[in-house]
Amino acid sequence: MSRPTLLVLDAEPPPRLGRLTGRATIEHADASTLAGRLPYADVLLVWDFTSRAVRDAWPGGGPRPRWVHTASAGVDHLLCPELAASDTVVTNARGVFEGPIAEYVAALVLSMAKDLPRTLELQGRREWRHREGLRVAGSRACVVGSGPIGRAVARYLKALGVHTALVGRVARAGVHGPADLDRLLARADWVIAAAPLTEATHGMFDARRFGVMQPSARFVNVGRGQLVVTEALVEALRKRWIAGAALDVFEREPLGPDDPLWEVPGLIVSPHMSGDTVGWRDELGAQFVELYGLWEAGKPLPNVVDKQRGYVPGH
Amino acid sequence: MSRPTLLVLDAEPPPRLGRLTGRATIEHADASTLAGRLPYADVLLVWDFTSRAVRDAWPGGGPRPRWVHTASAGVDHLLCPELAASDTVVTNARGVFEGPIAEYVAALVLSMAKDLPRTLELQGRREWRHREGLRVAGSRACVVGSGPIGRAVARYLKALGVHTALVGRVARAGVHGPADLDRLLARADWVIAAAPLTEATHGMFDARRFGVMQPSARFVNVGRGQLVVTEALVEALRKRWIAGAALDVFEREPLGPDDPLWEVPGLIVSPHMSGDTVGWRDELGAQFVELYGLWEAGKPLPNVVDKQRGYVPGH
Repeated sequence: MSRPTLLVLDAEPPPRLGRLTGRATIEHADASTLAGRLPYADVLLVWDFTSRAVRDAWPGGGPRPRWVHTASAGVDHLLCPELAASDTVVTNARGVFEGPIAEYVAALVLSMAKDLPRTLELQGRREWRHREGLRVAGSRACVVGSGPIGRAVARYLKALGVHTALVGRVARAGVHGPADLDRLLARADWVIAAAPLTEATHGMFDARRFGVMQPSARFVNVGRGQLVVTEALVEALRKRWIAGAALDVFEREPLGPDDPLWEVPGLIVSPHMSGDTVGWRDELGAQFVELYGLWEAGKPLPNVVDKQRGYVPGH
Repeated sequence: MSRPTLLVLDAEPPPRLGRLTGRATIEHADASTLAGRLPYADVLLVWDFTSRAVRDAWPGGGPRPRWVHTASAGVDHLLCPELAASDTVVTNARGVFEGPIAEYVAALVLSMAKDLPRTLELQGRREWRHREGLRVAGSRACVVGSGPIGRAVARYLKALGVHTALVGRVARAGVHGPADLDRLLARADWVIAAAPLTEATHGMFDARRFGVMQPSARFVNVGRGQLVVTEALVEALRKRWIAGAALDVFEREPLGPDDPLWEVPGLIVSPHMSGDTVGWRDELGAQFVELYGLWEAGKPLPNVVDKQRGYVPGH
């Protein structure tokens, strides 16, 4: 039996693939070579999850990989109509990012509550200026996105004593539907965007929704940059419609040095790192090797993406 | 019956004392007038908890207040041998600061784990530089101080998935004794100082103890500045014996603009604000009014300080 061909779309080689020695013929591609190699690959590993090359290169017909795995939670960078219509199975890195992102959101919420950015600024100016923090326990959060990441964020915030509502695509036990969103936004101290990027969520945080929020509200985006109409957020901060925000994801990444977002008052900018903790690349590599073992044994894969919806359907 | 005289040591008048109208004759004192007025007071409210005037002014004999309440958790600023030897009852503000301080410690721990200070610094320089955070869940903390504040900090850290050991003056259920301290310090990712300032704790974090800690350890002090030999901490940071620290309390407060502590690498400096959340003064005022009601009715007071030990004995 001939070895399957594993094509890896990467900028730097993933760890752990040495474990597939003798079990796969591993080839590498970049954006310029992907289209030419896809017809000869059985499996595609999208390791460089910042690349949108799959959308451009995926063939409309003919031979193509039977399985695509992405080393990311979101799949918006690879799902194109041709891939969605094909019988190729798409899996994601569910399980790797939830805990780290939940901790990251908690770090932001607690830091904003305790005015830590201002403390560091005052320290830089050698100024002793006492201020009063906010209690986090008893405050209210609205977490938008009821997938594994949103649920992990909600669990974590609840552990901190925050009254937390979760909003998903459809109402179900423990999850509010979109009809409740504006009412929940209107009373939230913390609004956390943790939804996948789909047609329904694209630009959902717009001027109207920032207008609904409380002047004391703070907004955090750890989902995808395109969930937010960025100019509307900037205006909401400048006009003090809301008290602060933190963005870890952006419409275009990385932000260039001239981007005006770096200096918006009340905005914390971080470089798409909320899910990335020491050892994460290794964990992503190990997860793929494990899935590869299932695939080569003909067993069902976990983390299969619903290509119409654009995410792994949950509970 | 004549009204009791309530003497208030304050820089600015406490809220809520209006509720004692007709129930107490309220007088005010500052450091210069305290000694002269103490013999005529039935109750002393130490509202200005930054003042050490009580230590200097407390009379060795003769008439003096029967009850002293301090609007603080620590009592090191007022306990002198004469007060300790007298039959005057001392109470503190137990119950007000625990939750806020626990949240503050969590904010520091999570921020350091996620490298937030560096993120803010890079934002100021308009630099997009991806880094990897640390997982907080599964890390180890050693909380020194098993009073209400230390216990609240430990509860909070445990809720974040941190393996947390609590160290107190004596070993008891759920609390390690001093004999375990060095062993626990040697494996802690987070060392939290939340002990009262007593003879036993004065300077306990010295060069030897920082030397015991891991190079990856981070130290947080929300207790009292004098728990730490500050020069030893500065050296430990400069020599990279430990990875970072955050101080909210200092041997002398406030820090002056020329204090070298403002610029120690890896050190976060905040102005003694960990327990202070919006409404805290009001809460402290309300707590005193409640205790006053018990006192005037001849009922037992809660939060009574053991004047030999220097704190309210707990569970």
